[in-house]
Amino acid sequence: MTTDTPALVSYPAQSVDSRPKPDWRFENVKFLRSPEEHELKIRMVSTGICHSDIVVAAIPSRPEWGLTFPKVLGHEGAGIVEEVGPGVTVAKVGDPILLSYTYCQNCDLCNVDQQPYCLNWTPINILGGKGIFETKDKEDAGGKFFGQSSFAGTSIANEGSVVNLKDLIKGEDELKLLAPLGCGLMTGSGGVINGASVKPHDIVLVTGIGAVGLGAIMAAKIAGAKEIIALDRVAHRLETAKELGATKILDTTKTSASFAEDLKKLVDGQRISVVIETTGALPVINETIKALGKHGKFIQLGVPLGPEVTLPLSEFFSDNKSFECHYLGNTTGQAWIPKMIQWWREGKFPIEKIVKYFPAKDALKALDEMQDGTTIKPILVW
Amino acid sequence: MTTDTPALVSYPAQSVDSRPKPDWRFENVKFLRSPEEHELKIRMVSTGICHSDIVVAAIPSRPEWGLTFPKVLGHEGAGIVEEVGPGVTVAKVGDPILLSYTYCQNCDLCNVDQQPYCLNWTPINILGGKGIFETKDKEDAGGKFFGQSSFAGTSIANEGSVVNLKDLIKGEDELKLLAPLGCGLMTGSGGVINGASVKPHDIVLVTGIGAVGLGAIMAAKIAGAKEIIALDRVAHRLETAKELGATKILDTTKTSASFAEDLKKLVDGQRISVVIETTGALPVINETIKALGKHGKFIQLGVPLGPEVTLPLSEFFSDNKSFECHYLGNTTGQAWIPKMIQWWREGKFPIEKIVKYFPAKDALKALDEMQDGTTIKPILVW
Repeated sequence: MTTDTPALVSYPAQSVDSRPKPDWRFENVKFLRSPEEHELKIRMVSTGICHSDIVVAAIPSRPEWGLTFPKVLGHEGAGIVEEVGPGVTVAKVGDPILLSYTYCQNCDLCNVDQQPYCLNWTPINILGGKGIFETKDKEDAGGKFFGQSSFAGTSIANEGSVVNLKDLIKGEDELKLLAPLGCGLMTGSGGVINGASVKPHDIVLVTGIGAVGLGAIMAAKIAGAKEIIALDRVAHRLETAKELGATKILDTTKTSASFAEDLKKLVDGQRISVVIETTGALPVINETIKALGKHGKFIQLGVPLGPEVTLPLSEFFSDNKSFECHYLGNTTGQAWIPKMIQWWREGKFPIEKIVKYFPAKDALKALDEMQDGTTIKPILVW
Repeated sequence: MTTDTPALVSYPAQSVDSRPKPDWRFENVKFLRSPEEHELKIRMVSTGICHSDIVVAAIPSRPEWGLTFPKVLGHEGAGIVEEVGPGVTVAKVGDPILLSYTYCQNCDLCNVDQQPYCLNWTPINILGGKGIFETKDKEDAGGKFFGQSSFAGTSIANEGSVVNLKDLIKGEDELKLLAPLGCGLMTGSGGVINGASVKPHDIVLVTGIGAVGLGAIMAAKIAGAKEIIALDRVAHRLETAKELGATKILDTTKTSASFAEDLKKLVDGQRISVVIETTGALPVINETIKALGKHGKFIQLGVPLGPEVTLPLSEFFSDNKSFECHYLGNTTGQAWIPKMIQWWREGKFPIEKIVKYFPAKDALKALDEMQDGTTIKPILVW
């Protein structure tokens, strides 16, 4: 079986001003094969774009690690099952599904329900697999990124990535909207509820108002946190944060670089007990560590943009604080996506306020709008 | 009511070679008053000495914070209730009790069962109270350290510090032995089970083989950890560690200062998933951070002897690690001491192997033997 499918392909990153720049191309690729054991063939309906796609597209090829380009990225897919391989039990042909990350379910950490930390996570989610897509120059374009490579009209997914929505949604319009639940929103909301166990007495500071940050804000509101502070440098994002649950905002374009004191003042010196850090920027990390109060948890969700961080150890100890790096909401798509859908139906997780649809062929425009901050969560429609 | 009681009193620390040296004196002090609301008068049977006593005895007075000397320290007391104040329900006159830390049970963190992180912890445990003991020079010697000040033949304890052993022990000999359960052993064992949630797939590294470290080792064995590594620089302590459950040892007097690689070799490159750090020494902290494997938890239990620590942030994030500062086993004496006693009866928590009794009047000898490493857990007998 060989056919064609449109796809957003990442070619090897180019160096521009000494910085790697992703080389995205929207084009038709050959779709080479049927699903094998524990795989499904998916007709994609829509795909959310996540910052991690952009981060990975900028990594130089490392063939010695198995990381090669061209590659089909995309890891917030929504689609319809077209064909199932041997052994698949999660869904049947025709079922509507969402795609999240995949895991081996066979290692020490999967065995104790710590799938985001699967010991085989990187090979099966980042390196993915070959023999699925071929470019017009007959090059293999890597597939199964996050077990799905959902920047394609048709793709092959691992069973571990699949969440069956058959009994949870009412039609393709809902499916199209819900695509982004598989990564960023899960990371933010699960980070707050599973990672930080936010309670009504907590004051939660969320830095960086993208999809991860907004997932965190909506979840903090659901958990009943007594204050939710949103920090960003883009005014309209902060407005969205307020609309979704932030009770206070800090626009860092209006403060000095030492904004820890501004944060403390914002809550009248009350204890900031949870920081959800999604920017990865060291100046933000350093200032918010200073603002963290007694028995506070600092939860790093954004990929850090620097190699080291210095913790004030004496104070960290005397105030019993933690610095923790979490992935993917400390949960699985199968466990968490149904919960987010329920909140969405109850009006507590209004993702329609942060998405913008783009025809898949306009993917480059969608990427631009995401990077310049105009759009929080672009969704490509296939 | 005024009477006399023998006590180990901490006078203001002296500066020796520019370093503060505790000034301990064993002497009779006046015992000034009856128990007030939610207090009990305790006839002490025995008291474990904990390193925190030595740390606090060396702190210069800070009257502006309410920290003054002379002071009666001691926070691993075992005794018999002699009198109860109004409102006390935890025990009756004649009951055998152990003493642990106290908490307000009235703050945001006590209200969610996070008593070791009580927002009033420092005033009620470190600053304590006055009007209980008076030295022969008519100076007030501060009491209610950890709600107990159990370095005294008779003392006043807060109800929050009291664990009633009436139904748990068979006589005063058992009570005498069990004194140390209230702090160090609870901190180590609770750190492993409540803090790190050690499971059979874990490899646990314990640094510093004092009572906290040995509590951690016994608990890691109870939790079924697949390997338990003990690290210290005193050979006989490492032998004790092996006897109590360590499966591997590293004597840092026999390695270079860069012993992270030695640790990895010791477990054939397997993933060290939990570090329980009890030394507080920065070189140990830095090397063991390097040895921590994927999704590892670094749990700081020892008071750090330096102001800052630098974490390898990129690696911490890509391997989803945590750096956490925990207190007191993440539990209360009331919840944890009965569990340790049950393990002890089952032969799984053989504290008799690490204690040495001293008549209380030989307290200075006991302190010396603890500091030079000869004795792991001295118990003063009143």
